[in-house]
Amino acid sequence: MENKSYVVEMNGNGVHEKIALNCVSAKGFNGIEIHHKSAKDTVHPAKLKSRRQRWNIRPSKMSINTLNPIRSIVDGMTLTPNPEKPMIALSIGDPTVFGNMPTDDKVLQAMKDAIDSHKYNGYAPSVGYQRSREVVANFYSCPEAPLEAEDVLLTSGCSQAIDLAITVLCNPGDTILVPCPGFSLYKTLAVSLGIQVRLYNLLPEKSWEIDLQHLESLIDDRTSCLIVNNPSNPCGSVYSKEHLQDILSVASKRCLPILADEIYGDMVFPGCKYQSMASLSHDVPILACGGLAKRWLVPGWRLGWILIHDRNQNFGKEIRQGLVKLSQRILGACTIVQGAIESILNDTPQHFYQRTIHFLKSNSEICFSELSTVPGLTPVMPSGAMYLMVGIEMEHFPEFQDDVQFTERLVTEQSVFCLPATAFEYPNYFRIVVTVPEEMMVEACARIREFCQRHYRPRSQESNELDQ
Amino acid sequence: MENKSYVVEMNGNGVHEKIALNCVSAKGFNGIEIHHKSAKDTVHPAKLKSRRQRWNIRPSKMSINTLNPIRSIVDGMTLTPNPEKPMIALSIGDPTVFGNMPTDDKVLQAMKDAIDSHKYNGYAPSVGYQRSREVVANFYSCPEAPLEAEDVLLTSGCSQAIDLAITVLCNPGDTILVPCPGFSLYKTLAVSLGIQVRLYNLLPEKSWEIDLQHLESLIDDRTSCLIVNNPSNPCGSVYSKEHLQDILSVASKRCLPILADEIYGDMVFPGCKYQSMASLSHDVPILACGGLAKRWLVPGWRLGWILIHDRNQNFGKEIRQGLVKLSQRILGACTIVQGAIESILNDTPQHFYQRTIHFLKSNSEICFSELSTVPGLTPVMPSGAMYLMVGIEMEHFPEFQDDVQFTERLVTEQSVFCLPATAFEYPNYFRIVVTVPEEMMVEACARIREFCQRHYRPRSQESNELDQ
Ligand SMILES: Cc1ncc(COP(=O)(O)O)c(C=O)c1O
Ligand SMILES: Cc1ncc(COP(=O)(O)O)c(C=O)c1O
Repeated sequence: MENKSYVVEMNGNGVHEKIALNCVSAKGFNGIEIHHKSAKDTVHPAKLKSRRQRWNIRPSKMSINTLNPIRSIVDGMTLTPNPEKPMIALSIGDPTVFGNMPTDDKVLQAMKDAIDSHKYNGYAPSVGYQRSREVVANFYSCPEAPLEAEDVLLTSGCSQAIDLAITVLCNPGDTILVPCPGFSLYKTLAVSLGIQVRLYNLLPEKSWEIDLQHLESLIDDRTSCLIVNNPSNPCGSVYSKEHLQDILSVASKRCLPILADEIYGDMVFPGCKYQSMASLSHDVPILACGGLAKRWLVPGWRLGWILIHDRNQNFGKEIRQGLVKLSQRILGACTIVQGAIESILNDTPQHFYQRTIHFLKSNSEICFSELSTVPGLTPVMPSGAMYLMVGIEMEHFPEFQDDVQFTERLVTEQSVFCLPATAFEYPNYFRIVVTVPEEMMVEACARIREFCQRHYRPRSQESNELDQ
Repeated sequence: MENKSYVVEMNGNGVHEKIALNCVSAKGFNGIEIHHKSAKDTVHPAKLKSRRQRWNIRPSKMSINTLNPIRSIVDGMTLTPNPEKPMIALSIGDPTVFGNMPTDDKVLQAMKDAIDSHKYNGYAPSVGYQRSREVVANFYSCPEAPLEAEDVLLTSGCSQAIDLAITVLCNPGDTILVPCPGFSLYKTLAVSLGIQVRLYNLLPEKSWEIDLQHLESLIDDRTSCLIVNNPSNPCGSVYSKEHLQDILSVASKRCLPILADEIYGDMVFPGCKYQSMASLSHDVPILACGGLAKRWLVPGWRLGWILIHDRNQNFGKEIRQGLVKLSQRILGACTIVQGAIESILNDTPQHFYQRTIHFLKSNSEICFSELSTVPGLTPVMPSGAMYLMVGIEMEHFPEFQDDVQFTERLVTEQSVFCLPATAFEYPNYFRIVVTVPEEMMVEACARIREFCQRHYRPRSQESNELDQ
């Protein structure tokens, strides 16, 4: 067989190559450097060589710009628990760590059945098995926002769903609207992609509703996506139908698509009603992100999804195709979990969901009522999800500069760790995860009370001290 | 509680906001537009509104630039099998599709044990469980290239490993060296990230060794990574120790880090020896990418890894940190598979690996010897992996313009589908996947022979025809 050159030239390098070789031999021959004017970007070999004569490997800008605020804050803290008290971590957003919130046996059985079937070891399509997409579509379909298999992409966790949604909607230089306080991943992903983040305020005194005027004031020509997280991490808030409609009005008026992070969807306390954003939207196209992590208590399994709601074809075919193309970069979720999803969604008994909710509510109530009477703290009662935010009246704690110092010292003295809400761009609050066993929650609250009683200074006394 | 504003301004929008509102009210009041010169990039509200008065959502450049050559070529083909012959697909790089290559029972049992342990449902660290990383490190450690847990990152398939490795090493505008023919994902990922791809030639007549002179000629100041895929998809080639050393010499001389895609590592035929790139490197730092997909025959499970080899600290801490940061974007592999990995690596019996290899070798030999005597075809015998490349002497098939037309017609007439190697940037070849059951392979080869015999034109006859 002949040695044929089949190179598909990406950038005209076949040409450069020959010129580069010419240069070298020409120089070798008569010592004079020949520059071929025609080859615009040929870099001179001698220069090349000098630049490549030592190792100088730098991490990419994107990796440098992938910032995780939780990590950088927590890594900067001195967390040395009091050796006389066992550590209680109220900081970890993983409901499985204490063993008190196991997933349902049906969920585990579904996985084992998927393994035994021998049907789910090969590659699935990059957007997920058709059947699995159909099952998710049926589970979340409702008359106001019907879904079909084609509207569902399965992803590697809700995190990848958010990544794909942001990546398909935004170009570098665009701006994206993100709740404040809010889940830090939005900013981490956006900043790494060169997208500007604009934080819109949530109002603690209005159960963390969005300050709609502030939100609207942030929208401009380059705004390509509004992220709404309901129910919310870190607030535990659940928006009313009316508030969701108000948000949709703004989005509709300004023609702004919504990324609805609904990973805590349906995790709301009795007496409160959860409504998906999409069920209330008439024209605003929505990418709703969700997954198995929280409601089914298996965050490690990494199954998430994007539900494409686009009643008026405002996304059109292109956004769908863009998502499909992006999904082909690394493919999505583990096929065993995909194979198990039908049974997970359809066979998990109602009492499992109810038990989770009741536990979260009861723990939230304990925590809220305990901390409500602690001097200098202002807890905000959640209505869902797994979190509770606590305001620190910093003027009463003059020893501490901010929430980071406050929570740091809480570890040193009381061996209780809560995440300072600076990690959510919201200083002077801290977040409590309410998934810990009840007795731990009670004990933690008692210790927080002790801590605050010790460090609390009434305002008048404080100014006296400062005057001295 | 007071309503305090804790917004951390990302881009000075608090200021813009007020000015924007001023503008609106000023205009409303006296009909005159007031421009605040001090606010450089305030966009005028009236203009904003007009731009946001209709829906106009475009997919991002990145999603548009995420190109999958296999998809775009295959989707462009008319694949209508001959209704009289059952379809045989020799195109699918998934060893599980025909059911003749099941994974080992130990592998399945390891998964069920991980589920039953109830220990692997929560979040793992984004780089994987420490114990799982340790197990992979031990499995691949050798005296010449020792590994510890810290040198291993677990990823969502080898695809994510490649994605992270490219992303940490390259900036937009950099160039990356990619084999031709080669696995299409390298280009897909690089192009989507704005990285230029330069294809270096493999030489079919030298068992697909790298044309080192060509390779070296492509290196310049902006070259930030050399990808070497050994054993190779689509070639099935396995490089000798000497050739690997020659590649390393080039990389060492030009101070170029290597991304070694070794997903088919150890999948080599008896009589041939596989050596990892890292085991031969003295100074060249290597990110070796691998995973469970191929050798353990479970590609859907999405467990991959990066092994960081950096004996001389040429990557240094920063590349490691960059990888860790990037891994936090979407987190990595399913925890159940991570929990199973110890048993998968340590308890899978040797005869399982051997059976796979023997089957692949035997099928390759059947295919090679059958096609060697087919007029107009030039198969290249592989030494490993799961593929075999076949050259088409196009001058003998004047009816077809290229490999795409050739393979398209092969479907129409013989219901046999092979991937045209244009999908690997290598026209006038096609790739055969040798994982199909033996009788299918035999039947497929017979049909390919029939097809070629029918369309083959000896060179002289061909020119006669053209002369008429
Ligand atoms: C609001 C929110 N969205 C998304 C995620 C990520 O979910 P997953 O683990 O499925 O990637 C979390 C996890 O804590 C979250 O709190
Ligand atoms: C050379 C090569 N690298 C990487 C991969 C991707 O492996 P994974 O399925 O683990 O992402 C493949 C899959 O076909 C491959 O052929």
